[in-house]
Amino acid sequence: MVAEGMISQRDAVLRLQPAQLDQLLHRVIDPAVNASPIAVGLPASPGAASGVAVFDPDAAESRNAAGEHVILVRDETTPEDFHGLVAARAVLTARGGMTSHAAVVARGMGKCAIVGCQELQLEEGQRSFTVNGNTVKEGDWITLDGATGRVFLGELPTVPSEVMRVTSGALNAAQAPTYQAFHKLMGWADAERRLKVRANADTPRDARIARNFGAEGIGLCRTEHMFFEGDRINAMREMIVARDESGRRLALRKLLPMQRTDFEGIFEAMDGLPVTIRLLDPPLHEFLPHGGEESKMLARTLKLDRADLARIVDGLRETNPMLGHRGCRLGIVYPEITEMQARAIFEAAVRVRRRGIDVMPEIMVPLVSNLAEFANQRELIDNVADQILGAMGEHVPYLVGTMIELPRAAMTADEIAQSAEFFSFGTNDLTQTTLGLSRDDSGRFLPHYLEKGIFAEDPFAVLDEAGVGKLITWAVRAGRETRSTLKVGICGEHGGEPRSVAFFHKAGLDYVSCSPFRVPVARLAAAHAALGS
Amino acid sequence: MVAEGMISQRDAVLRLQPAQLDQLLHRVIDPAVNASPIAVGLPASPGAASGVAVFDPDAAESRNAAGEHVILVRDETTPEDFHGLVAARAVLTARGGMTSHAAVVARGMGKCAIVGCQELQLEEGQRSFTVNGNTVKEGDWITLDGATGRVFLGELPTVPSEVMRVTSGALNAAQAPTYQAFHKLMGWADAERRLKVRANADTPRDARIARNFGAEGIGLCRTEHMFFEGDRINAMREMIVARDESGRRLALRKLLPMQRTDFEGIFEAMDGLPVTIRLLDPPLHEFLPHGGEESKMLARTLKLDRADLARIVDGLRETNPMLGHRGCRLGIVYPEITEMQARAIFEAAVRVRRRGIDVMPEIMVPLVSNLAEFANQRELIDNVADQILGAMGEHVPYLVGTMIELPRAAMTADEIAQSAEFFSFGTNDLTQTTLGLSRDDSGRFLPHYLEKGIFAEDPFAVLDEAGVGKLITWAVRAGRETRSTLKVGICGEHGGEPRSVAFFHKAGLDYVSCSPFRVPVARLAAAHAALGS
Repeated sequence: MVAEGMISQRDAVLRLQPAQLDQLLHRVIDPAVNASPIAVGLPASPGAASGVAVFDPDAAESRNAAGEHVILVRDETTPEDFHGLVAARAVLTARGGMTSHAAVVARGMGKCAIVGCQELQLEEGQRSFTVNGNTVKEGDWITLDGATGRVFLGELPTVPSEVMRVTSGALNAAQAPTYQAFHKLMGWADAERRLKVRANADTPRDARIARNFGAEGIGLCRTEHMFFEGDRINAMREMIVARDESGRRLALRKLLPMQRTDFEGIFEAMDGLPVTIRLLDPPLHEFLPHGGEESKMLARTLKLDRADLARIVDGLRETNPMLGHRGCRLGIVYPEITEMQARAIFEAAVRVRRRGIDVMPEIMVPLVSNLAEFANQRELIDNVADQILGAMGEHVPYLVGTMIELPRAAMTADEIAQSAEFFSFGTNDLTQTTLGLSRDDSGRFLPHYLEKGIFAEDPFAVLDEAGVGKLITWAVRAGRETRSTLKVGICGEHGGEPRSVAFFHKAGLDYVSCSPFRVPVARLAAAHAALGS
Repeated sequence: MVAEGMISQRDAVLRLQPAQLDQLLHRVIDPAVNASPIAVGLPASPGAASGVAVFDPDAAESRNAAGEHVILVRDETTPEDFHGLVAARAVLTARGGMTSHAAVVARGMGKCAIVGCQELQLEEGQRSFTVNGNTVKEGDWITLDGATGRVFLGELPTVPSEVMRVTSGALNAAQAPTYQAFHKLMGWADAERRLKVRANADTPRDARIARNFGAEGIGLCRTEHMFFEGDRINAMREMIVARDESGRRLALRKLLPMQRTDFEGIFEAMDGLPVTIRLLDPPLHEFLPHGGEESKMLARTLKLDRADLARIVDGLRETNPMLGHRGCRLGIVYPEITEMQARAIFEAAVRVRRRGIDVMPEIMVPLVSNLAEFANQRELIDNVADQILGAMGEHVPYLVGTMIELPRAAMTADEIAQSAEFFSFGTNDLTQTTLGLSRDDSGRFLPHYLEKGIFAEDPFAVLDEAGVGKLITWAVRAGRETRSTLKVGICGEHGGEPRSVAFFHKAGLDYVSCSPFRVPVARLAAAHAALGS
């Protein structure tokens, strides 16, 4: 219609809806197939996938290694399932909402997920589930349609979208009319928007995908995900259970080259674009095994008495880990962790720079509540930078900034901006603390709240403007009053949600950052916001 | 000196320091005794007490019932230790800070407590502890001095202060010169202050003590403490594990007369003064046993399969219970709980009124984050009031208000005040959410923070003015703009802390509410604040 002069490019951008984009960006069940679902859950992450059902992450990993396509089926997932999620093509859970662990991780990976499928009956220890009279055992084929939440028996044929095939390099753009239309429209959208769009990406692979989808940088690289893979978890655990600083430093020395390699790969993928790296954030007990065979092996690896190990693990347990010893509180009590991470970042930056890569690291301190915490971490980081860059005779421009994810940080943004060069609103945690609402536990009452209209929206899906939004508006203004050049972004789940993006535009943010597969949606939403729609 | 005209009454008030008052209000070790402590912990609650060491709440209860004086020694305490704390004369813990469970509960009860005594070595399952070469077994006598944190072997003589003996009725004021001086000075202080002082009290006994200490009402009556005692816990557990609403209503009917009796006693004790009653607040799993003999007995009592019971208990477990299904979220999902509590309040009010008591209930909805939640609960309460008061042909003036303990409630105070007649800042929880800081878990890093000057003060002891205080100031102004008659108070631990009281005065609050034994301190601090000192 634009080609025929019937509507303007701007009208074309305005007519395109985010949901239409989503269909273009994921696999779908072959429309020619006619099948009835055995169950329906929450459509947590779009895409379609077939695979054999597996019921624990280790089985997912070993069957995947053996070349099988697997779908991980769990009551709900935890960070310990991460390797299973990596191995699986899709995830199906009986519990949890749109922002449960499985949903968030799957969306981050661009994998199909159906969560909160309450009809599923999973028995502890049984490698099967039953639903509406059907029993699915480990190894049985199932197919998920993440866009609609439908679960099917058997292997239904799925097809990748054309846009996906071009983005992944499997198809030449010249032979892809839908991709060309998509690409043209996204270009028109980009011309209208003021908000920049970055992606949350933790690996070089995700960084490349994000870039292909038009990300203008990485807004959130979560370093902790790097510690779960392969051998690394052992070095990480060794660090955690060390009795003193020298023991921790010994373990951190093992982690350093691994972190450095990760960062090199990400910097290379994002050549010329900024990469925001968040320092270690989660509570340490998330990295430890809780009993069972894994504990036995860890005790052996670390040459520890099993009872001693159990005592250490128990001692790290917290009543409310979300509000516990995590974020910058780790780096303040154990400065050697921050130092190792800063060293890995700067060494990686110098190495890629020597290979001609244009590198722009932005180091981000998590869970800051006051200026003193931030200044403490900033000093450690600057010292490491001086030392590494001085010794290597290189100059690498870098920024040090902070997450704003606690109400107190927002309330004292004017002070924090004295030392912080950028703010990134962590709207997931800021929503949890502002509303006093645990994302992991809200499943018991949030559906009731939505049904009764007590909350108009799930605040983890659509930003709560009247509460969380008010804090953001306040902090942006206060921060920029202190430092006019303050860079301000957001890196929560809301960064890829159209209505929230419209709010961030209005609040004057510089960028939003979201999962790679949400980047086109964010680009479109940012254009819509700029066009006042 | 006042009598001699050397200084004014006002000067006398200004010269008296809160710490001096504290000495007047608690038992002390007989100053004639000369002994060396075996350990020193945090002086969490003043007073001195001797007793035999016991290592679990059941032993505390049974030995107390047998007439022994007991001191409960625990690694740390949880709500399940409550009956042991009730039975003990004092509590000693190896872990936890000034605002740990043991510290808060002991201060609330006016009992001596020493917490975070890290030198104590307690072995799981052993009924003894060792410290600096001394071993104390169950049944051995120890003496605690809560004002200094010192732990002694043996039974040292302790003496009640004169003020205490008069307040408890054991001594006639006419024969008590120190009490007379105290009373005169407190009268002068009262003449200067603008802030009213209420007490946090959950029982008629505490209400009477509070009143004798000069409390002008109850600012926080926690109804959940009433559910832990004796048979009540069974009815409460029956309610929690009920499969449906009718099962819950059946159990609630058993709780109704018990709650009503409690309220009658408290209303009587506070004749002519307002009583603020907070609806059920803690997550339900706090009421359930976690395994062991108690679970077996409960399954038998409730005629439930043990596996079924275990499943129910497991299902109620939360990752972050502080941010979970608690507060008004309970009353919204289970309106029958709010209805039962409202019924108990209004029936009790009518009964005592018919006995000539002047009753002024103020019903308080906890953990509100937006207007819709509050309005939902207010409607239930008003409906019960219409029904009970209508049926009984009585008029009882009452208010319905809310806790402001979540940042979002403070940020939207203007809206909430459309329906709420009073605000009470729950500064413990507001500190936890604003700073993203779990009171129960902060022990691992808070000492380090204080030592390094990253926090100038423990924010649970002294109100964080720059963060939490800013939210309070904002909410008071916004709330009063909507409703000029809005009554505003505070009922956290900070209500009895002098510097925090000075802030509450400045912020224009109507009253502070604190533990009964802190009431004189709060009266003095409020006078100091009014005098600009």
